[in-house]
Amino acid sequence: MKAMVLLLLAALSAAVAAEEPIQPIERPKNVNVAKVELGKQLFFDARLSKSGWISCNSCHNLSRGGTDNLVSSVGHGWAKGPINAPTVLNSSYNIVQFWDGRAADLKAQAGGPIANPGEMASTHELAVKVLQTIPGYVTSFEKVYGKGPVTIDHATDAIAEFERTLVTPDSRFDLWLKGDKHALTAQELAGYELFKVTGCVGCHNGPAVGGATLQRMGSFNPYVTANPSLGVAGLSGQSADRYRFKVPILRNIELTAPYFHDGAAKTLEEAVDTMVWVQLNRHFTPAGRDKIVAFLKTLTGKQPDFPIPQLPPSGPDTPAPQPFDP
Amino acid sequence: MKAMVLLLLAALSAAVAAEEPIQPIERPKNVNVAKVELGKQLFFDARLSKSGWISCNSCHNLSRGGTDNLVSSVGHGWAKGPINAPTVLNSSYNIVQFWDGRAADLKAQAGGPIANPGEMASTHELAVKVLQTIPGYVTSFEKVYGKGPVTIDHATDAIAEFERTLVTPDSRFDLWLKGDKHALTAQELAGYELFKVTGCVGCHNGPAVGGATLQRMGSFNPYVTANPSLGVAGLSGQSADRYRFKVPILRNIELTAPYFHDGAAKTLEEAVDTMVWVQLNRHFTPAGRDKIVAFLKTLTGKQPDFPIPQLPPSGPDTPAPQPFDP
Repeated sequence: MKAMVLLLLAALSAAVAAEEPIQPIERPKNVNVAKVELGKQLFFDARLSKSGWISCNSCHNLSRGGTDNLVSSVGHGWAKGPINAPTVLNSSYNIVQFWDGRAADLKAQAGGPIANPGEMASTHELAVKVLQTIPGYVTSFEKVYGKGPVTIDHATDAIAEFERTLVTPDSRFDLWLKGDKHALTAQELAGYELFKVTGCVGCHNGPAVGGATLQRMGSFNPYVTANPSLGVAGLSGQSADRYRFKVPILRNIELTAPYFHDGAAKTLEEAVDTMVWVQLNRHFTPAGRDKIVAFLKTLTGKQPDFPIPQLPPSGPDTPAPQPFDP
Repeated sequence: MKAMVLLLLAALSAAVAAEEPIQPIERPKNVNVAKVELGKQLFFDARLSKSGWISCNSCHNLSRGGTDNLVSSVGHGWAKGPINAPTVLNSSYNIVQFWDGRAADLKAQAGGPIANPGEMASTHELAVKVLQTIPGYVTSFEKVYGKGPVTIDHATDAIAEFERTLVTPDSRFDLWLKGDKHALTAQELAGYELFKVTGCVGCHNGPAVGGATLQRMGSFNPYVTANPSLGVAGLSGQSADRYRFKVPILRNIELTAPYFHDGAAKTLEEAVDTMVWVQLNRHFTPAGRDKIVAFLKTLTGKQPDFPIPQLPPSGPDTPAPQPFDP
């Protein structure tokens, strides 16, 4: 009898969770382990940059919520980045990549910073030449992709496969979604209710609590910023796309300050106050805002916990890094 | 009878190993685990720099033999470092720290780069203010050092404790030293013999195969370099100390190119050829030099294999990083 009641309760919980606008983060299925290991090394390898000093992990730092916690990133020659670095955590849930959605998927994204003069400042040709001359990489690429030369296509494919594994399951909110009714405090639950009824979930929904659509920043009231990024309009030239950006993921948001594409909001409180005004034409009371923030902090999940990768040494023909050459 | 023979052989091996000029790397004893964990976080935390973008691990990269594999390092504002970054691996075996030996120990060393305007460009006061306002760190410091404010003394002490654990035991050479006579090939053994009889062991000895003394670079023939570093003479003003440097550690040398204080030697072959000429007034045949290189590659030990550290998020009062402010 007790077992039946428990089964019934579990079924009810599952039914309730299925109706929630946010779903639990799940670990990816069918990952290619050898490809993930190769992609992990590439993600941490600064030899993909001209300087030999900037890696994917420099700006999407896996010790810091997948971000650099800067307003905008530092690039080659100490270039100032144009936009706040989005987190790589759970980024496989994004419908498109980059703030303006200009990359269709993680693989297309991965090739961008490598060749961006203000980021890693290499070229795809040079990056491939570097990888092709590192004996340890040649072995790994052959293991995953078969005999033949290393290509940028394979390198970005491996990075993307690694990034697919960068999910953060088992946040307290997910435990609650999955039926542990003691996982959240009364204040956190009240925050979640407020998050729903106020309309935040209109954009911040799905497993990643964002990332599923592109939306206009300032749909009700104008968002004022000195940052010149136009969002999708920078690609389309359409005025209707001005300030239209990929909705940021709210998973692990407590770790990824500062916030917004311009990095202007230093704290979660500031970010919530601004968003509810410009997007929803509302003001929270301080108590209401604190409830939302308490809820947001329940979205911090299990962080990546693999051993620091060991990179294969360069070979005699590997092009030397050029940090200071023009 | 067989057991007795094996015991006798083991005893003989131990006796032989004890007479070798190089001893195995051993794991440190009596480390303070909580202090190591705190120091590990600090080692990876770029908030110890003014920019929030440079950590100890940026130049002493534990994915790359504890170095950055650059001729000289990149510092704040893309400053060009004056000297090749030495490996942090096994650095607890160094008699003194820095190329010129100006720091007595790892703790004294750790405070240097934080406050060096061309490296991390912070100040000890700012670094302490940052740590003191990060709630997760305050808890960790109190756990290790008791109640009271965070101090730079404690921060560098924790970093040094972590660095004590960065040893690389169980290289093939150490397995051989400990009695596994199949651990090395005939060529590698011949290289070790040549390393001894040529006199390389005069400076490169002890567990770290270096680090135990300061010696003049160019004791027989002048070492020609454009690098202005004077070595100990920069501190003492004595002409006898010109180009006197801490003897570099040869452990994991295959991972830490380029070589010498000026990073001028791109390959091990080049480094060996130069050293045997300027220090020992000799020339190796190519075959002899290749034997030495083969031996050197047996010194690569087990690399650090802990999970990537997770850093506590900043608090509301944590000073913002200033990557682009003057």
